[in-house]
Formats: sequence, structure tokens, C-alpha cells
Amino acid sequence: MTNVLIGVDLGGTSTKLAFIDENGHFLNKWEIETDKRDSGKYILLNIVNSISEKVKELKIEREQLIGIGIGVPGPVNFETGLVYQCVNLGWGETQVKEILEKETGIPVVVDNDANVAAIGEMWKGAGKGTKNMICVTLGTGIGGGVIMDGNIVHGVKGAGGEIGHIVSVMNDGFTCNCGKKGCLETVASASGISRLAIEAVRKTKRDSKLKEWYEKRNQLTAKDVFDALHEGDQLAEEIVENVTKYLGVALANIGSLLNPEKIVIGGGVSAAGNALLAPLNHYFNQYTFSTVRISTMLVLATLGNDAGVIGGAYLAKTYGDHIRKIKHNSYIKELT
Amino acid sequence: MTNVLIGVDLGGTSTKLAFIDENGHFLNKWEIETDKRDSGKYILLNIVNSISEKVKELKIEREQLIGIGIGVPGPVNFETGLVYQCVNLGWGETQVKEILEKETGIPVVVDNDANVAAIGEMWKGAGKGTKNMICVTLGTGIGGGVIMDGNIVHGVKGAGGEIGHIVSVMNDGFTCNCGKKGCLETVASASGISRLAIEAVRKTKRDSKLKEWYEKRNQLTAKDVFDALHEGDQLAEEIVENVTKYLGVALANIGSLLNPEKIVIGGGVSAAGNALLAPLNHYFNQYTFSTVRISTMLVLATLGNDAGVIGGAYLAKTYGDHIRKIKHNSYIKELT
Repeated sequence: MTNVLIGVDLGGTSTKLAFIDENGHFLNKWEIETDKRDSGKYILLNIVNSISEKVKELKIEREQLIGIGIGVPGPVNFETGLVYQCVNLGWGETQVKEILEKETGIPVVVDNDANVAAIGEMWKGAGKGTKNMICVTLGTGIGGGVIMDGNIVHGVKGAGGEIGHIVSVMNDGFTCNCGKKGCLETVASASGISRLAIEAVRKTKRDSKLKEWYEKRNQLTAKDVFDALHEGDQLAEEIVENVTKYLGVALANIGSLLNPEKIVIGGGVSAAGNALLAPLNHYFNQYTFSTVRISTMLVLATLGNDAGVIGGAYLAKTYGDHIRKIKHNSYIKELT
Repeated sequence: MTNVLIGVDLGGTSTKLAFIDENGHFLNKWEIETDKRDSGKYILLNIVNSISEKVKELKIEREQLIGIGIGVPGPVNFETGLVYQCVNLGWGETQVKEILEKETGIPVVVDNDANVAAIGEMWKGAGKGTKNMICVTLGTGIGGGVIMDGNIVHGVKGAGGEIGHIVSVMNDGFTCNCGKKGCLETVASASGISRLAIEAVRKTKRDSKLKEWYEKRNQLTAKDVFDALHEGDQLAEEIVENVTKYLGVALANIGSLLNPEKIVIGGGVSAAGNALLAPLNHYFNQYTFSTVRISTMLVLATLGNDAGVIGGAYLAKTYGDHIRKIKHNSYIKELT
């Protein structure tokens, strides 16, 4: 009988769920809508019901279920499984661990979604084989996960890994959603790149693919920038240089501080592949400490949208191991 | 019979040594000259002889000696105790652990001096009670130690904690000893502050204490800058603003990445006390993530020059505990 780990990746639009075995192989993978009505009060119940239906459908025995690992889009107290807030879901303080454990009767581990994606990449993705790595997720915003010695660095108040809020524009930076100015997120996330592109086409007098597209659609995405770059557009090249310079110095400084084995770049923007990685490596090498240059590697994430559910499964597994060890120890104690 | 831990802080001019008990109390503390002649070949032998004399003098029994913990001014392979290089000592690759263990017959732990100072501050200084902290040493250069979950983060090639080489001046920065431009060390170390001060007095047309002093002595130290600030000198205030802005953004970014409980500021420059800490806190708060602002504290180091020997003793102690545990386990194995 296979043990089953349940990974859940709770997002603002949809929630990804998966049953995964202890070797990290998918047994089943599905997706449900995230119902945000009434301050998100149906979200957890929908997850519980969906898991329960799938358990019945697949004829999984209760004893097979090891635990649930869930990533949520907000700050979390990892010890207690309390979610402080998820603006995207309409949640205030929510006892995610307590509620899910009560409803399912199995152990639940809760962490921030960027941390869970990082641990997923460590287990089965680009970070496989290392225990010291950073994961940066370049999506609408920028998330980050710091893994040292195989453990997520949560920080004293759960703000570990807030890579998007590293300041990389010292003067005259854009204002960030967090209230500060010049955060990495304002220039190197999908929305940051879009903003830099729009600013650039408005300023330039030169001809440019990007300018044409902007005049036609009145919008520019990060993907547009990399598409234009692919077509040899000069302005797009300058924007990508800017983006990778800001991102490069931030990652270089993380390198000088922690000298991790790998820095894994994921999220939608990382789909640009080598068009992003090549200039990024250039600036990383320029700004990081010499020893780091030859020992810390920048790599692209490999799990894509599966990183969250795989990471969730890993958390359920290690937590399950931990619980079993405690049980085993008390068993030994009872014997002696 | 008290167990004795030996802490050694190997510096470019002098070497500090101490016998310390397992509660962190000094039994004896002394200093010897660091003899750098002939590529530093006498350094380790002098340390061994000095320890051996002191053991005789204090009538310490061999069984009391738990181990030696030594900090060296260069990059170290912590696992093997191999020192890659110490430019200040004239050393190339040196088997510090192997040599010292062979000569003394007791276990030796070797680490970079900034890491050892950090662990000292964690055990008995400003970081007492926390297991997640950063230590920044503002001396002639800038050293750093990152402690996560009670362990020093060494990084994949020993470059963890190279805080001095975080880039905080993106454009037109000074060239650093490491070959890069704009490193924190070029603007916030004692020599960096001195350089900023000299540049400022050369540029300004205003009257200033600092300018007077510079014209008299043809030199300005970091201490001069804080002395002038104390006397209300406007130019000194501007220099300190600049220094703490660069240092503040670097520490703020470390905060957003790791959200440690404390960031401990040590080294000669930290003697400026609140004149440094107050503006530093201002910029730290301006640039760091909101949650970090209310949970990560900037504090001054409290151990001064003793941090190195105390940290060395701690390394000897934890390593000793580790060895004893292994011995104890094999003892149990023999019994069963």
C-alpha cells in the first residue's frame, strides 16, 4: 500500500492539488477554482471536500494518507500554521493548520507559497541534490525562498525570503505595494518589466517594435519585451539589460552573503530562458564576490507550476517522518 | 577539575589567546606577537609553544583540555580545517587543523575570524539568547558572520558572510581590494570612511573642523569623523549620513532576505556607539521590509576584542560535545 502525500498550492485564482508518493511521483493531480466570495470563507472547506472526493474516487485507504502540505500566498507562522493575512484571498488571520487538521484528521503543514515552491525545486527540481539554495519566483510579484542546510529560513517573524523587497534602486525608485521605494519587485517582476517597458516607449523617439505594439494595444507585457528582444529590437535589449542589472546585483549580494550552491530562477518571467539567464549571469558575475562567482550557480527552475504541490508533499513527508519518529520513541519508552 | 576550552584569535599584528571554562568565563587571557617572517612559518608553532607554556604555568592537566577553536583572517574549509589563504599572514594554503592537532594532540576547529567573532557574540555577547543573527565587523575592512539556527553559514566554498563585498554603490563606486567596484567595504569600513572624509574635505569650499584637521595632519580617520560630528561639524554629519545610508541599505536587504532576530554591529567603527546606530536605524527602517522593521533589531556588539577568543572557545566546546557524543555512543555500542 503506497503512502500518499497531499500537496496543495493555494492561489488567488485557482488551487492546485496533488497526491504524490514518497518518492515524489504524481499519483494524481487536479485543480479547483479558488472561491473568494465572503472573505474567502469557502476556500478551506472546498479544499477538504475536493480531497475527500478524490480519496473516494481513487479508493485510497485512510491509513495511506500521511499528511497535507499547503502553500498560501501570504505570511505564515510556520510553527503554529497560523496565516497572518492573505490579501489576494480576502483573508485576515486564519488558523489554516487547525481548521484543516480538524476537518481531515491528518497532519497539516502550512507555509508561504514561495517557500513551498523553493522546497519543491530542492526535492525534485533544479535544486535536486543540494541543501543550500535560494529560489526566486519572478511572477506578477517576486517571491523568494531561502533554504539553508535543507531547512527553509523563516526568520523571526516569517519575513525570511522577501527577496522582492530587497531595495535595488537606491534613488528615484518606483513605489512598491509594500510602501517602500525601489524594491526589486518594482523592476524585475512581470508587472515591473511591463512598467519599465511602457516608461521606455513613452520616452524614446526611436522606432521600435515595442513602441508599435504599445501604440496598437496600449499595453505591454514582460512577454512582449522578450518577444521583441527575440526579433532584435534595440529598445527591448536595453530594457532587459536594466532588468537583469537590478536583478543581478540583488542576486550577487545574496551570493556574497550566503554563497549558496544554487540560485534557482522560477516564475512566469523565467520562461524567457536563456534570454534572461545570459545577461543575468553577466551582472551576477560582475557584482558578486570572486569565490561566489566560481561556486554559486544560477539555474532555471524546472518544475514550473508543479513546484508548489511537490513542495507541499515534501513538507508533509518530512513532517510525517518527524511525527513517526516521535511515535516510535514513545513506543520505545513504553517498552522500557 | 574544570574543563578548559582554548580560544585563539589570530590577527595580522598580534594573536590573542584565552583559556575559558564551559560556562564562557575567562580562566586566563594573553596575547603574543604574530611573527610574519618567512611567509608566516613560525606562527602556528609560536601558538603551540605559548599554549604549552601557559598549561605548565597554570598546572592544568592534559585531561582538562577539551579543544582549540581558532579564528584566522582568511577563507577556510570548515570541514577539513584547511586555510585557503591569508594574505595578511603571508600564508598560502595551510593545513591549520592538521598541524595544530598533530602538535598539541587535542581537537582543533578552524574558522574565518569574522565567523568566530559572530559565534562569540551569540554565546556571550549582544546575540545572547538568539540562534538567528548576523554579525557585521566594521574594522579596517568589513567582515561578517551569518548564524542560522545556531550554526555558521559557511556557503558552498566558504564565502558565506562576505558582507563587506555586498555592492551598495551601483554606479561610480570606488574599486575594492577584491577587484569589484562599489563594495560596502569601500564606504563603510574604517578605511572607507576615511576615504569618504578626505574626498569630502577636498571637494568642499565650506569651513569645517574636518578640513582644518586634514590641512594640519594630511590624514583623516573614521574616529576623526565621529569626533567632528560630536563637535557639531556639518560636513562630518553629511559623511556619517552617507556611510549609514550605504550600510543601512545593505543591512536592510539582509533583513528582508533572512529576517534575523538581531544584527550585531561590531569592530572599531562601532565604538562610535549611538552616533552610528541612530542614523543607521533610520536608513535600515527606510529600506527594509515592514515586518522586518518591527522584528529585526540592530544592536552594538558587547564583547569588543574578546569576541574572537570567546567564539573560538565556543567552537571548541560544541565540537568537544560532538566528539564526546560519538565516544559515548560507541561506548554504549560496546556495552550492548
